[in-house]
Amino acid sequence: MKATVSRKAHFNAAHRLFRPDWTDQQNKDVFGKCNNPNYHGHNYDLIVSVTGHINKETGFVIDLKVLRDIIKTEIEDQFDHKNLNLDVVEFKSLNPTAENISVVIYNKIKRRLDPDLDLQVTLYETPRNFVTYSGDK
Amino acid sequence: MKATVSRKAHFNAAHRLFRPDWTDQQNKDVFGKCNNPNYHGHNYDLIVSVTGHINKETGFVIDLKVLRDIIKTEIEDQFDHKNLNLDVVEFKSLNPTAENISVVIYNKIKRRLDPDLDLQVTLYETPRNFVTYSGDK
Amino acid sequence: MKATVSRKAHFNAAHRLFRPDWTDQQNKDVFGKCNNPNYHGHNYDLIVSVTGHINKETGFVIDLKVLRDIIKTEIEDQFDHKNLNLDVVEFKSLNPTAENISVVIYNKIKRRLDPDLDLQVTLYETPRNFVTYSGDK
Amino acid sequence: MKATVSRKAHFNAAHRLFRPDWTDQQNKDVFGKCNNPNYHGHNYDLIVSVTGHINKETGFVIDLKVLRDIIKTEIEDQFDHKNLNLDVVEFKSLNPTAENISVVIYNKIKRRLDPDLDLQVTLYETPRNFVTYSGDK
Amino acid sequence: MKATVSRKAHFNAAHRLFRPDWTDQQNKDVFGKCNNPNYHGHNYDLIVSVTGHINKETGFVIDLKVLRDIIKTEIEDQFDHKNLNLDVVEFKSLNPTAENISVVIYNKIKRRLDPDLDLQVTLYETPRNFVTYSGDK
Amino acid sequence: MKATVSRKAHFNAAHRLFRPDWTDQQNKDVFGKCNNPNYHGHNYDLIVSVTGHINKETGFVIDLKVLRDIIKTEIEDQFDHKNLNLDVVEFKSLNPTAENISVVIYNKIKRRLDPDLDLQVTLYETPRNFVTYSGDK
Repeated sequence: MKATVSRKAHFNAAHRLFRPDWTDQQNKDVFGKCNNPNYHGHNYDLIVSVTGHINKETGFVIDLKVLRDIIKTEIEDQFDHKNLNLDVVEFKSLNPTAENISVVIYNKIKRRLDPDLDLQVTLYETPRNFVTYSGDK
Repeated sequence: MKATVSRKAHFNAAHRLFRPDWTDQQNKDVFGKCNNPNYHGHNYDLIVSVTGHINKETGFVIDLKVLRDIIKTEIEDQFDHKNLNLDVVEFKSLNPTAENISVVIYNKIKRRLDPDLDLQVTLYETPRNFVTYSGDK
Repeated sequence: MKATVSRKAHFNAAHRLFRPDWTDQQNKDVFGKCNNPNYHGHNYDLIVSVTGHINKETGFVIDLKVLRDIIKTEIEDQFDHKNLNLDVVEFKSLNPTAENISVVIYNKIKRRLDPDLDLQVTLYETPRNFVTYSGDK
Repeated sequence: MKATVSRKAHFNAAHRLFRPDWTDQQNKDVFGKCNNPNYHGHNYDLIVSVTGHINKETGFVIDLKVLRDIIKTEIEDQFDHKNLNLDVVEFKSLNPTAENISVVIYNKIKRRLDPDLDLQVTLYETPRNFVTYSGDK
Repeated sequence: MKATVSRKAHFNAAHRLFRPDWTDQQNKDVFGKCNNPNYHGHNYDLIVSVTGHINKETGFVIDLKVLRDIIKTEIEDQFDHKNLNLDVVEFKSLNPTAENISVVIYNKIKRRLDPDLDLQVTLYETPRNFVTYSGDK
Repeated sequence: MKATVSRKAHFNAAHRLFRPDWTDQQNKDVFGKCNNPNYHGHNYDLIVSVTGHINKETGFVIDLKVLRDIIKTEIEDQFDHKNLNLDVVEFKSLNPTAENISVVIYNKIKRRLDPDLDLQVTLYETPRNFVTYSGDK
């Protein structure tokens, strides 16, 4: 019996959408006010969903205390109260769109999980804009 | 790499569940208090989810400003502060159940998207009742 | 010891902002798209707050089952799945703005409560627009 | 045309994670503070999602009044204001983890539905921890 | 300049409404299904609101890290994953209604605050039922 | 008859808690991770509440379209997708704590309102931390 267990987390960060290899005008045209050179910010909400067999003995797909600690170490401790562009190594040369942040989060958590478990992450940049990523398929 | 980008929108509308080819009693039996001839109404919440490849240059599946404008033109401008039965052409001869409204919204948005993009819509009639539609499969 | 006990309720209704003694143009100028002659609608959320002494024996300000039944009889049974302008006697000659609906709700509930209890009602017309009324002071 | 119709419900219950065939230390190590012998509790939120063809005549996948009554009879009347371990027969010998509660809820509702309808249940133990189950596949 | 600073917290607990000096029938009549002898439970949400002057140097009414730690030590560590009736000393001889829990929380936090600060607590027993208490006035 | 009308708004901004006249150590000790020199950010939610007499003719305390436009011009257009410390003139020499931002918002909106109307603003820095300010009293 397979089930999906989900855990919500959150982090507050500054970011800016920007490509250094584009002109200022190109950056402005594509990224609009998200391109503000002084940065803006969000309360990011994150849902991490893990799918696998329910262990018959424990009744768990994954111990949520373990999942919570992985999210804390890999994501919250790295991203919370940070400037994603300046403080987080993964975005030194990757534009921190919600799509790209989701892929980075997926990869950081996936390598910490048992390979039999499937992973999906949903990242809310605002309550009205969010992205779901579940690996390259 | 494929991801799903979602945008929330909303509109406030009146409606009534009703089939003109049924007797009053049939309408009452099937549609209950939703059949009130003087209409009732809802704050409809809408989640529009678009799935596709993450563009390597922009880091976007779809520019959310573009998606927001499609939702505004196709749905909010047509449905908000309207009586769905009387003011919206698609429901002149289609009963505006949450299921049917979802199909209409799907069709109106789908034809505005790049055909490579997959679409799913979730329509909340109330915070407790909602419908998801992702095309005829 | 005084405390305030609150109970949330909700009803779905159609309405229209409109004064019959005004010209169509006046109605349009003041009430905008809320003036649509075919009505529009909302999921109204209601918070009813009752303030009084905590009864030492029961530990209650008011039994929430009693409050719930008053709200059901006075408000939900009268307003839910109704057209406020056409189906609710209080709005036959009173414009159903959120302010006026709040006053009507306050008056209907207040007369059912022990006079020692203070009442406040908060009515959400949408999640972004709401009104609070606590009697004529 | 297939769509998914969802209905939210909720129940408030006490529970304890515990295996009688384990030592106290094993129970404590695996279940942590959820193992408190005096129980703790939750406001469980439940989303029941039913997928099927939209009936052309009614515009319904399933009449939500019917689905609401199934949820009330099978789940809310059995679980609400109960101690899951002591008062609910299904958990006499099954540890009430969110995963196991989801499977029990799925089975209780599935047998009441038309076999052509697919079912998925999502159970929120807290707003931050939830489980999704859609049958043994 | 006075402002109010609020912090949300939560705890999951079991409880039962019950007076040992009443007959079973009296307990049942007044407390209904909340009287279940095997307990039931809630995810309690708590809002702690502190009012005082804005310190000109820090721009704080109270450092939220300090307030968060007071709530953790006084409330979350004492109440979370507990049975209020059996595990929490304050309710050994006090019926844990939402009103009484609010008064206990108020008193535990108030004595930890600078006497110049005013306090109000709002306790959500469920998203639909909540109590506000701001001291004996 | 007096009532309070509230309107929710929001803006996404970067900020940093920092006093230039303090040493780095003082800033770190008092403001903790909110002192990150590269900034972090939030989705700020704002509730603007206006209290006054219900106009007998319109049934309005204040036309919400007017209030919405004041909030847009005075707050959203100035603060959204901005760095509060660098881009907003009011915080050039004022530390942007939630308390101080609330006072600035109050002052900017108050001067646009009829002096007979009372104002209160509530600013959510996160869903768990918020500040309420209603003028110097």
